[in-house]
Amino acid sequence: AELFQTTGSFKYRGATNAVQNLPAGTRGVVTHSSGNHGQALAKAAAVKGIPAMIVMPASVSPVKKAAVIGYGATVVESGSTSTEREAVARSVQEKTGFVPIPPFDHADVIAGQGTAALELVEDVPNLDAILAPVGGGGMISGFSLAAPQTRIFGAEPTGADDAAQSLAKGELVRLEKCVSIADGLLTNYLGDLTWPIVQARVERIVTVSEDEIRAAMRLMWERMKVLIEPSAAVGVAAILSDAFRDVDAPRIGVVLCGGNVSLDTLPWQS
Amino acid sequence: AELFQTTGSFKYRGATNAVQNLPAGTRGVVTHSSGNHGQALAKAAAVKGIPAMIVMPASVSPVKKAAVIGYGATVVESGSTSTEREAVARSVQEKTGFVPIPPFDHADVIAGQGTAALELVEDVPNLDAILAPVGGGGMISGFSLAAPQTRIFGAEPTGADDAAQSLAKGELVRLEKCVSIADGLLTNYLGDLTWPIVQARVERIVTVSEDEIRAAMRLMWERMKVLIEPSAAVGVAAILSDAFRDVDAPRIGVVLCGGNVSLDTLPWQS
Repeated sequence: AELFQTTGSFKYRGATNAVQNLPAGTRGVVTHSSGNHGQALAKAAAVKGIPAMIVMPASVSPVKKAAVIGYGATVVESGSTSTEREAVARSVQEKTGFVPIPPFDHADVIAGQGTAALELVEDVPNLDAILAPVGGGGMISGFSLAAPQTRIFGAEPTGADDAAQSLAKGELVRLEKCVSIADGLLTNYLGDLTWPIVQARVERIVTVSEDEIRAAMRLMWERMKVLIEPSAAVGVAAILSDAFRDVDAPRIGVVLCGGNVSLDTLPWQS
Repeated sequence: AELFQTTGSFKYRGATNAVQNLPAGTRGVVTHSSGNHGQALAKAAAVKGIPAMIVMPASVSPVKKAAVIGYGATVVESGSTSTEREAVARSVQEKTGFVPIPPFDHADVIAGQGTAALELVEDVPNLDAILAPVGGGGMISGFSLAAPQTRIFGAEPTGADDAAQSLAKGELVRLEKCVSIADGLLTNYLGDLTWPIVQARVERIVTVSEDEIRAAMRLMWERMKVLIEPSAAVGVAAILSDAFRDVDAPRIGVVLCGGNVSLDTLPWQS
């Protein structure tokens, strides 16, 4: 139930591990993220006592901006394309000497995310498998390394299924565009560090439709009373899907990876 | 966090205690409730292996009816006034010989609800006070008896403040009408068993507005990721309210009493 984690998602694990491993004298950290990694890094830096600059598109929702500022970081505005955001992040890095902490393709970030699986297999020793939603692959890579004896499954929205395609094809697939309500999983391709780990360790990546994501999210809200975000619902939707019926793994750990969701409207409202 | 309790509310504690204490040979149980007590009794009876009949107004939402049926009970339809519902429940009782289990004014129900406070003071030994929302007073009476060394505060919606008025006046106040989004607290007056306990033990009952309830509910959903229902938000709203500022009780336990809420729309949507 990583939605109960500090900053509302598992990302705090990776951000904390990365920040705590920085050499003494590090001036600050920088990243570009309009999502959970930005909030997590903001808080992790505050705990360490160093400044953080989070690059976000000018178009980002005021709530997300306020969250990052609330955790004590500075928001730097950029254009909304990846190229524009990366350019601003690099410029901040050059001007300030702050260390970039990327959202997933970073050894300390991956190792940090892995601690969620470590705790899970300690808590539930007889687990047949662990299932994790896949965006950039940081979480599932960390799980793969932290629970080497456990089978690993992934889950992706059909509209952002680059990892599923990569695994099926046996080579890294880069998507032009990702579209899904699961805004934490809109990464177009896996990283240099995460792809080899995914390829070596992940048994299968199940894809789910937007309707399945919404239904799983509503089911968890209504029956479990936990306010998971759409990206977390992707994992729940996967184990509930027809595609998963023939998987012979009776005891599957599903990490509810986050709970940061806009409450202005409900995703199942027309 | 009683929203995580079986059937989604603390009511399962009282229903279970009442059902488990029934004499051998009891044929079944009956109650009239369109809310959490109905669901709780349905499930408690199923666990005990005896039938339950839950009287609900014909106008009740299909979701609530389906929940009771899902727990294995039979729904008996009635008119929507208290008199009509009670008449149907009495008629069921006479025809079937089933034992009536009322929602709050029943010693075993009160004792059962008290176990939530018992667990709370065991988990958090240095608690200055416990705060509970007040409907018919079953929960707060149980808490009062189960945690005799702890100060007890109550909370009510302004539109259903019969207990606050009773406590202030020193005699039982019966309201003509209760209006609040907190549908679990729309009881017009305390019971024969609960009122004397409330009068003897409850230090103060704080009242909160509908806006305060909605704001507390949204705060808990957004920041704590727990899907509390409006009645549970009443307790949170109370400790956040101006009225509570002068209460000298730094460590207050607030029971999040339930999480059964319609997810068709959001209460803060216009």
